[in-house]
Amino acid sequence: MKKLINSPENVVREELEGLQLAHADRLRVSFDPFYVVRRDAPVKGKVGLLSGGGSGHEPLHGGFVGPGMLDAACPGHVFTSPTPDQMFEAGKAIHSGTGVLQIVKNYTGDVMNFDLAAEMLREEGIAVESVLTDDDVAVEDSLYTAGRRGVGLTVLMEKLLGAAAQKGMPLDQLKALGDKIRASGRSMGMALTPCTVPHLGKPSFELAENEMEVGIGIHGEPGRKRMPLTSADQITEMLMEPVISDLPFRKGDQVILFVNGMGGTPLIELYIVYRKAAEIAARHGLTISRNLVGSYITSLEMAGASITMLRADDALLDLWDAPVNTPALRWGA
Amino acid sequence: MKKLINSPENVVREELEGLQLAHADRLRVSFDPFYVVRRDAPVKGKVGLLSGGGSGHEPLHGGFVGPGMLDAACPGHVFTSPTPDQMFEAGKAIHSGTGVLQIVKNYTGDVMNFDLAAEMLREEGIAVESVLTDDDVAVEDSLYTAGRRGVGLTVLMEKLLGAAAQKGMPLDQLKALGDKIRASGRSMGMALTPCTVPHLGKPSFELAENEMEVGIGIHGEPGRKRMPLTSADQITEMLMEPVISDLPFRKGDQVILFVNGMGGTPLIELYIVYRKAAEIAARHGLTISRNLVGSYITSLEMAGASITMLRADDALLDLWDAPVNTPALRWGA
Repeated sequence: MKKLINSPENVVREELEGLQLAHADRLRVSFDPFYVVRRDAPVKGKVGLLSGGGSGHEPLHGGFVGPGMLDAACPGHVFTSPTPDQMFEAGKAIHSGTGVLQIVKNYTGDVMNFDLAAEMLREEGIAVESVLTDDDVAVEDSLYTAGRRGVGLTVLMEKLLGAAAQKGMPLDQLKALGDKIRASGRSMGMALTPCTVPHLGKPSFELAENEMEVGIGIHGEPGRKRMPLTSADQITEMLMEPVISDLPFRKGDQVILFVNGMGGTPLIELYIVYRKAAEIAARHGLTISRNLVGSYITSLEMAGASITMLRADDALLDLWDAPVNTPALRWGA
Repeated sequence: MKKLINSPENVVREELEGLQLAHADRLRVSFDPFYVVRRDAPVKGKVGLLSGGGSGHEPLHGGFVGPGMLDAACPGHVFTSPTPDQMFEAGKAIHSGTGVLQIVKNYTGDVMNFDLAAEMLREEGIAVESVLTDDDVAVEDSLYTAGRRGVGLTVLMEKLLGAAAQKGMPLDQLKALGDKIRASGRSMGMALTPCTVPHLGKPSFELAENEMEVGIGIHGEPGRKRMPLTSADQITEMLMEPVISDLPFRKGDQVILFVNGMGGTPLIELYIVYRKAAEIAARHGLTISRNLVGSYITSLEMAGASITMLRADDALLDLWDAPVNTPALRWGA
């Protein structure tokens, strides 16, 4: 196992210490229990946006805490759900009187623990709503999930709801907007290599030198098929077609196109994928109104890529363009 | 070789096509010869900033073209210097009457070709100056270099000079400022794994499962020593100590600290390195006034990290904070 770490047990704690040291102007970190929170939380008059999930997907979610995006993020151990007490404490820290919206990726442990935390927060008199992401078209049910997995759409969801919350949108409308985004976005990913969870010390699965896994999840869960490695253009077709046909995206749709790296794939390759994805979108009569290219929801050092598309009307595009100031996503501020 | 590419010969062209498609709001790409240029070039009354180098280090340099940073970037083939005709055409495209400043990493081919291009541009009546980066303290002379290699400081140089040029600083002052930045910054890097140049098809060197290379260059050139893999904290000491003692950085200095990933290293590990680097800086009485954490000057999918420190007075910090709007570095715009 070749990693820049000190010991497997301390990976999450030490990463959070680094995050806090690097971005103390924007966020602070609680270490008991673990959560990352806007430095100025709770922000008066604003619904608090809370997310979280297993570590190993950085910058998701801690790197998205800041004005215009999340108020707090709860990191679990690597590829392990955070616990309800983390979400409970983080929820209290960001509640300014107007409630808390949870953004939850559809994994069994995450859903259960966010539900428990919501109950605990409600017992404190805090209004709580939740929106789910389950955008991965690759498989129904999987190793950690009933239903579809929440993947790349989560990044877009956090940006868009973050902008809406920052503008003062109330809790019930944020919940409705989140449900609309959930219904309008789809994703699919693939891997060239596995990744190694630090405390396991060996790759989570094996891929031969000429093999790839199409439809993989962000924890290395099996996908649709293992097959011989082919060209970037063919791989991009294999990701785009299921995404387009599932929603379905239709001629004339405006979309946000997100080409994501899995952690170990260099940017030069992501732009080669973007090139083909844009060509396929054009062939289907889709207009790419905004895009995002980079490694934003990762699987440690896994090599591979995923594609997310979100149908977006002008109101969503305005939210996309609104200022954001987080460690990993920043513009207009 | 596991890469998201179509054919080794087309990697650079297709990456540039993707870059142009994704960022047409900010830049355009010339394909004959290859260069990336601000969409609104030449910008009246502003010195044109030109850089370039071999591909494979993305987002450097094409991802740094835009308001507040570079006016143009010339990509060579992977790990191969661009040619003088690229720089000549790019230089003409960005010259608005106030001259062109070249930012050149110290590699023999880059220096020679930028020098030739400068001569060609001067024959056209365009004033040209050049600043060099040679910040890598690891080795004197190496596979591709006489003297020290230009590495991470190049990213900071492009940001700072880009801000100064945007504010209207004339050519001679930009040159002097660039020389001051060159004299005030130092870097060192290490690798856990090699990388594979597409048209070669096999790793550029071999590292055993328990080995790392300390002092490596951004093309996989040999470093100071190959040694058994150790902890992130010890590795960070091995990078920080030579950087600090070489300049030397002294108690009371304000610095910009840049922890860079080599392309295949996930962000979670970079923050673990940042944590220790910040502790070491504090031990030496240095104040980290600004920082940058991410993969900005890479070696394809190489796993590893480098550390750059730049001594910065308030004027440099103001330039750092100035708005920038490029594909890879963006704030305040």
